[in-house]
Amino acid sequence: MLVHTIAEVREKVKEWKKQGLTIGLVPTMGALHSGHLSLIKKSVEKCDKTVVSVFVNPIQFCPGEDLDKYPRTLEADEQLCNGAGVDIVFAPSPAEMYPDAQMLSNDFLTYIIPPFFYVNKLCGKSRVGHFDGVCTVVNKLFNIVQPDYAFFGEKDRQQLIILRKMVKDLNIPVEIIPCPIVREESGLALSSRNKYLSENDKINALALSKILFNIKACYNNGITDVDALTETAYSYLNTCHNLEYLEFRDADNLEEKQTADNNTVVFIALKIGNVRLIDNIALS
Amino acid sequence: MLVHTIAEVREKVKEWKKQGLTIGLVPTMGALHSGHLSLIKKSVEKCDKTVVSVFVNPIQFCPGEDLDKYPRTLEADEQLCNGAGVDIVFAPSPAEMYPDAQMLSNDFLTYIIPPFFYVNKLCGKSRVGHFDGVCTVVNKLFNIVQPDYAFFGEKDRQQLIILRKMVKDLNIPVEIIPCPIVREESGLALSSRNKYLSENDKINALALSKILFNIKACYNNGITDVDALTETAYSYLNTCHNLEYLEFRDADNLEEKQTADNNTVVFIALKIGNVRLIDNIALS
Repeated sequence: MLVHTIAEVREKVKEWKKQGLTIGLVPTMGALHSGHLSLIKKSVEKCDKTVVSVFVNPIQFCPGEDLDKYPRTLEADEQLCNGAGVDIVFAPSPAEMYPDAQMLSNDFLTYIIPPFFYVNKLCGKSRVGHFDGVCTVVNKLFNIVQPDYAFFGEKDRQQLIILRKMVKDLNIPVEIIPCPIVREESGLALSSRNKYLSENDKINALALSKILFNIKACYNNGITDVDALTETAYSYLNTCHNLEYLEFRDADNLEEKQTADNNTVVFIALKIGNVRLIDNIALS
Repeated sequence: MLVHTIAEVREKVKEWKKQGLTIGLVPTMGALHSGHLSLIKKSVEKCDKTVVSVFVNPIQFCPGEDLDKYPRTLEADEQLCNGAGVDIVFAPSPAEMYPDAQMLSNDFLTYIIPPFFYVNKLCGKSRVGHFDGVCTVVNKLFNIVQPDYAFFGEKDRQQLIILRKMVKDLNIPVEIIPCPIVREESGLALSSRNKYLSENDKINALALSKILFNIKACYNNGITDVDALTETAYSYLNTCHNLEYLEFRDADNLEEKQTADNNTVVFIALKIGNVRLIDNIALS
């Protein structure tokens, strides 16, 4: 069932709560692919009712980013959800989520601000304000849907860690369920932004997963020195790649690691042309 | 029933929700007086179950403020609550609310940040960060108690307006119920901080309500010019009074008024010695 208003969602949720049913929420920006589908399947399996939100959240895009051209495919998204047993596809308009559309700055809107230590690194470094927007909209969705469980992909692992921290710090009665990255057979992590890639770009994009898989193989062979592991990456990079970061960080609190261990995650971001791609791998 | 842990509250709340009971929350910092009691009575009357939280919230005190000496009278508070039909007095330790007590800055803790336009004036001007702390702890309490209604005094009207904005911006499923200021017969608004006042201070403290009552009388007599209304205040002030502000602002969005109308609130703050007192009156 496609629903556009908060009031309609609340009504349904109230009904479900009365019946004692559990609710799963899968927050998305639409342009759904098999990665999202894996989250949806997990929710449908675990919960009595599943809500998928489809909302391209303006306040998590930084100036100059791809807000306007971000892929919007609501009809296809709805079909995919219906086929997967989703109970509600919640696709609000920007005005439904932000009634004062002219007043989205922190001058006029209440924001959830995640801790500086968690956002001043990795993607947060180049995407200033991005995680404020993510936390704020997810918090809103939690308040609207009041789910028991919310499903997030490990693809956006910094986001996952920050949202888990938000839930803990604010005592939010929602359990966050992390879901593994889904990859093409080639190794490329699925992303709605892969639609921006040409055939040639896609070949170059394999560098991300190749670098991560190779680092994990080296780690499994006993190499734990982060500098040495980082070195192994360069042979996969060519002039098409604009490396933003390759970092080794703690899986819980994002502290930097000098020596890799089983609680280390390797994060990578690079640009191919104008397309920014991210990926990560846990060494555990 | 006195409860110290979040887990115990959650358990009770779950039980109540299952039975379809409505829940009222009265957040306080303890040192309860008749002002709080009026909120509590309203909740007990309106809701099936009432939770009163008693928590001196460290993150809403600014450096140099009275966190350490703020009055703590839990035993008396509990008795007052029991007498008024409260179901749970929730009095968590600071460590229960903030497990990483060494990490209360926004470097390590997720904060709710109310809009700058609402906090850069009145009390927010001198109490930098105060409303961030208020919004964050109230948000936590909302997530812990999941009330249908929450009761706040109009004594702290800027706080009330900011919390109402938070609820709206974040789609929090709680209805905020404002409760009128309770005054001594003398006119003095009740406040836990009145305990700091000497007998002589208390006489000087009457200036706040006298100024406000007189402005309202003048307004009722047809004076709407804010400068003229402000003028009327000075005859009540003597050298013991350190006036912080006397301002005319919109009751919903705190915009400044040049001409008073029925949606105007007059806000006053002044210091007598080291004690800072606030009061306000609606001209409607």
